[in-house]
Amino acid sequence: MRYRLDIEYDGTPFVGWQRQELPHTVQQVLEEALRICLRSEITIFGSGRTDTGVHALGQVAHFDYDEELDTYRVRESLNALVRPYPVSIHALERVSDDFHARFSACQRTYLYKIQNTRFPPALDKNRVWWYVHPLDVQAMQEAANLLIGRHDFSTFRSSQCQAKSPVKTLDSITVRREGELILIEVRARSFLHHQVRNMVGSLVMVGNGRWTVADFRRAFEACDRQQGGQTAPAAGLYFVSVAY
Amino acid sequence: MRYRLDIEYDGTPFVGWQRQELPHTVQQVLEEALRICLRSEITIFGSGRTDTGVHALGQVAHFDYDEELDTYRVRESLNALVRPYPVSIHALERVSDDFHARFSACQRTYLYKIQNTRFPPALDKNRVWWYVHPLDVQAMQEAANLLIGRHDFSTFRSSQCQAKSPVKTLDSITVRREGELILIEVRARSFLHHQVRNMVGSLVMVGNGRWTVADFRRAFEACDRQQGGQTAPAAGLYFVSVAY
Repeated sequence: MRYRLDIEYDGTPFVGWQRQELPHTVQQVLEEALRICLRSEITIFGSGRTDTGVHALGQVAHFDYDEELDTYRVRESLNALVRPYPVSIHALERVSDDFHARFSACQRTYLYKIQNTRFPPALDKNRVWWYVHPLDVQAMQEAANLLIGRHDFSTFRSSQCQAKSPVKTLDSITVRREGELILIEVRARSFLHHQVRNMVGSLVMVGNGRWTVADFRRAFEACDRQQGGQTAPAAGLYFVSVAY
Repeated sequence: MRYRLDIEYDGTPFVGWQRQELPHTVQQVLEEALRICLRSEITIFGSGRTDTGVHALGQVAHFDYDEELDTYRVRESLNALVRPYPVSIHALERVSDDFHARFSACQRTYLYKIQNTRFPPALDKNRVWWYVHPLDVQAMQEAANLLIGRHDFSTFRSSQCQAKSPVKTLDSITVRREGELILIEVRARSFLHHQVRNMVGSLVMVGNGRWTVADFRRAFEACDRQQGGQTAPAAGLYFVSVAY
């Protein structure tokens, strides 16, 4: 029987989602809680990895278990077990056997938060990219529009990326100001490694006036990571939701 | 010459605002930064104390200094000096000599955040009161309306309170739901020690159905802390702003 988890976490104390030799990944914390709760070694499959320091509002994962679970009680028990960590299981439900958190996903949504103020963040420390220089949101949106659709995203691809192809389809990208914050929301079926953070880093080059939209287009069309802007910090990135 | 500071902080790592023998109060962190920056022992006066774990979006303080300051540069320098802490100086400006952060205040605004969900907070850990049982916001607002105006607030007064009189005037109180959060905003010239947290604790007794609005009124009119509900946790409380 297959079960689906909907998970929120503060990425600050974790070395990302995926289990590895280093301690404190979100996956390890959840698998350890499941092991204690179900007295069984469980492997969970996330819809996507998140890097060190990246947050999730709606990460999705699945796992298999032989028996029918009282999902309400198991969720309560898991939340009690993960309590030392900033992790919360919003939902646990039985799903059909052909559901796969990663491969069934048809769209993923990420949000990137920039705090655009002279003063640093206090309550939002580790939850935003603090960017001091004024940013032109309209110019950023204009550049962002060039990214929509099916393209070679090599300019925004980490050298560590394991994807077979640099070609992806970006469904949407919006840049808007909300008080002191600039919010960049992107949607696609899937993303290359660091794609969102690298796109944001280059959009900021347009926002601060160092690049024109034409410069941004040239960098994008060069299909060369060397032509792109910096990688925006992990702290500003939120994995918002997955659509199936 | 008198200067005003507008300050944001995450209260989690602090034992409150006011300087004391214990380390890590917000006042100490700011005074230490001023001492280094201005090479002078400076005492700052806050508009109000906050307890351990209570946050501030707009705490106000003032201090005196003999010379004319380049307020822009001093603010930048102070923010660099407080960087290890979740504290941010939003503004530093010269004010008239008769300005007093505490005594000139004519209204203070506090916000209390309750996360009303079965699952615990992750990103908002230490920033909300996690309350599992459903709360009736309309009933809470009805009870809250009884508090508006000039009253004896002994039922909501901490035994540690040093105020001369338990009589205060509450200007407004609103209870509203915003998604998974219940937000309680209160305004008054001044408050008794723990008054906001104690009012919230009793409003929650109405919200969860254990008290009727009439029970709440009886407790309030008893002018006796023993008749009140619990003290709501510090983590949900935000000192929002001061009007002068």
